Amino acid sequence: MPKLIQYDEAPDEVRAVYDEIKAARNIPDVTNFWKAIANHPPTLRRIWDDMREVMGPGALDPLTKELVFLAAAMAHGCEYCTASHAASAKAKGMSREMLGEVLAIVALSAQTHVLADTWRVPLDPFYERQP
Amino acid sequence: MPKLIQYDEAPDEVRAVYDEIKAARNIPDVTNFWKAIANHPPTLRRIWDDMREVMGPGALDPLTKELVFLAAAMAHGCEYCTASHAASAKAKGMSREMLGEVLAIVALSAQTHVLADTWRVPLDPFYERQP
Amino acid sequence: MPKLIQYDEAPDEVRAVYDEIKAARNIPDVTNFWKAIANHPPTLRRIWDDMREVMGPGALDPLTKELVFLAAAMAHGCEYCTASHAASAKAKGMSREMLGEVLAIVALSAQTHVLADTWRVPLDPFYERQP
Amino acid sequence: MPKLIQYDEAPDEVRAVYDEIKAARNIPDVTNFWKAIANHPPTLRRIWDDMREVMGPGALDPLTKELVFLAAAMAHGCEYCTASHAASAKAKGMSREMLGEVLAIVALSAQTHVLADTWRVPLDPFYERQP
Amino acid sequence: MPKLIQYDEAPDEVRAVYDEIKAARNIPDVTNFWKAIANHPPTLRRIWDDMREVMGPGALDPLTKELVFLAAAMAHGCEYCTASHAASAKAKGMSREMLGEVLAIVALSAQTHVLADTWRVPLDPFYERQP
Amino acid sequence: MPKLIQYDEAPDEVRAVYDEIKAARNIPDVTNFWKAIANHPPTLRRIWDDMREVMGPGALDPLTKELVFLAAAMAHGCEYCTASHAASAKAKGMSREMLGEVLAIVALSAQTHVLADTWRVPLDPFYERQP
Repeated sequence: MPKLIQYDEAPDEVRAVYDEIKAARNIPDVTNFWKAIANHPPTLRRIWDDMREVMGPGALDPLTKELVFLAAAMAHGCEYCTASHAASAKAKGMSREMLGEVLAIVALSAQTHVLADTWRVPLDPFYERQP
Repeated sequence: MPKLIQYDEAPDEVRAVYDEIKAARNIPDVTNFWKAIANHPPTLRRIWDDMREVMGPGALDPLTKELVFLAAAMAHGCEYCTASHAASAKAKGMSREMLGEVLAIVALSAQTHVLADTWRVPLDPFYERQP
Repeated sequence: MPKLIQYDEAPDEVRAVYDEIKAARNIPDVTNFWKAIANHPPTLRRIWDDMREVMGPGALDPLTKELVFLAAAMAHGCEYCTASHAASAKAKGMSREMLGEVLAIVALSAQTHVLADTWRVPLDPFYERQP
Repeated sequence: MPKLIQYDEAPDEVRAVYDEIKAARNIPDVTNFWKAIANHPPTLRRIWDDMREVMGPGALDPLTKELVFLAAAMAHGCEYCTASHAASAKAKGMSREMLGEVLAIVALSAQTHVLADTWRVPLDPFYERQP
Repeated sequence: MPKLIQYDEAPDEVRAVYDEIKAARNIPDVTNFWKAIANHPPTLRRIWDDMREVMGPGALDPLTKELVFLAAAMAHGCEYCTASHAASAKAKGMSREMLGEVLAIVALSAQTHVLADTWRVPLDPFYERQP
Repeated sequence: MPKLIQYDEAPDEVRAVYDEIKAARNIPDVTNFWKAIANHPPTLRRIWDDMREVMGPGALDPLTKELVFLAAAMAHGCEYCTASHAASAKAKGMSREMLGEVLAIVALSAQTHVLADTWRVPLDPFYERQP
């Protein structure tokens, strides 16, 4: 396992981000993801800023944002992202049934992806300006 | 471009599925995706049955289902799926702002995926039973 | 489109490989794939040597080798590889029905992949020494 | 590890699928893959129905079907799928040499994929209608 | 083709980013990538800020940064990214031979990826703390 | 864990490759990757020959070659490749800061990949002949 940077040993620039995460999420310590990417402090700062902006208030409600992130994590095959965002989504109201449906959709999408690409399906005229 | 199976030349088993799709979606003709996978009639039947079930009524509302499919399509890099499900999502109420947010989340997720995998971030204890 | 290296303008080391390909396959000119990778002659030489060895006589018969390559090309989402190896497989006896079945299996596999990874399914004891 | 649904605690709709799998494969208990996806019973039912149809009798013989699934699993990088279908393929006659050749082909395909995509190799005229 | 946002029709927040890109790169107009992601102005702002920071001065010299980006683009199979960063790398000194070597390495890496994952190769003790 | 082929039990053709690797790298034993792919001796021979040629002296210096391989390994999500080539790159001079920058670039590239593909960004005229 690569080194995880703990709060007590972290340089000031890392502690500053940890403090922001802990305050924003009201948790006593940051999770392993942050302790890992803190191996490169500028990346820690940038990803936290990105995450806060992208997952913050917007046109989509917080639960929908988590479901979208979860779907992307499943599609990318990212183990840590799937586990952590499943937990976040549950905390925001995702039921077991909703989890099952998200996964069913992502799995179906993987299948249609293979089919659409293999047949090189041309875009129908009314899809050409999409998305 | 591989052959697209048109209604007039389709065998009965293909026409039967086309008729179901046209009726369910109230459209005069099926889109190219269906005409392509109809090159193997059993696959056409199976995918349509799967799609109808997975995207049908459930715990998630229809717009959320489309947003989840769209997110997965973007994450998989499926051009046709992205275009067609963006159109479906818009028809169900997705605004330009919502589209922008879905894409921002999927792109961010691609980035966290690389980071989490590269550092082999171990699951925190409270993530171990997730999802 | 990046430059394709034609026989007449090719350096000797490239022509030598082109001649081997043309002789081995009994074709008047090499296909675009070879003309593209010839932009880096050592890569052209290495890939041709690899291809000849891997796709040559072995424990699997020639048609099965092409079906396996085609399945991998579909799974990787490689447009050119899918088209070219579908042609090769047809030349070796792949029927339309067989093509449909290969694609159905690859698409199903994409779906089980998402499911197995998302649930982090542990290997059953008798799978632990596999493959 | 997410929860695996055991037979004794499973709801009736899950037990019904487990019984079908056990009967079809003549095994005393289903493998972990099924116990995991049973967390969402409709997905369990759908995947089993899909698997039975796609992997059932057809134009390809049973061993070839397993080799194609195995190739796709390797290409997708699905650990569980690779291990389980390697076991199935061996049970149907795959030798060590055949396994080595399947893997060599999939690995070669990954390499040609990168090359073909990077050079944006245009389809030769006689590939345009493929597959 | 989805809409590309031209300077003349762009809202102020988009024009501000376009101006920064044009000044930083000394070009008369931004490339299509920026005009596309400008469909969601906050994403345009964030990606530009990220790009400027990540690709700016650091421990790696500018050419090496471009080669690393190019390698990642090839590995991800991103057509636009590969073309644009190949151009940037050439502008910073990448020769045809260097391009050929980068691609050869990425293609080889795709092959070792399939092999390492399929065999589930355990990390040797002195790799366990890597990277 | 699949079987790793140890030197003492290896057939002559495998031992010959092991001896070459040990001599070239001045190490007492080959790493697990080689012991795994030795399950199919022709693959062991071919990959070693490919690796030696591709990673050998060329237009790129040895450290840059390792950084490029490392970037591709991160982009592919190959755990073993990332760990082993991070070690090789460090041995050739990669600092912690350089590692952080390589990873930041690859992660950014994953993000631009999703954006460029989703918007189907058309190549600007001066990118059309790239790479």
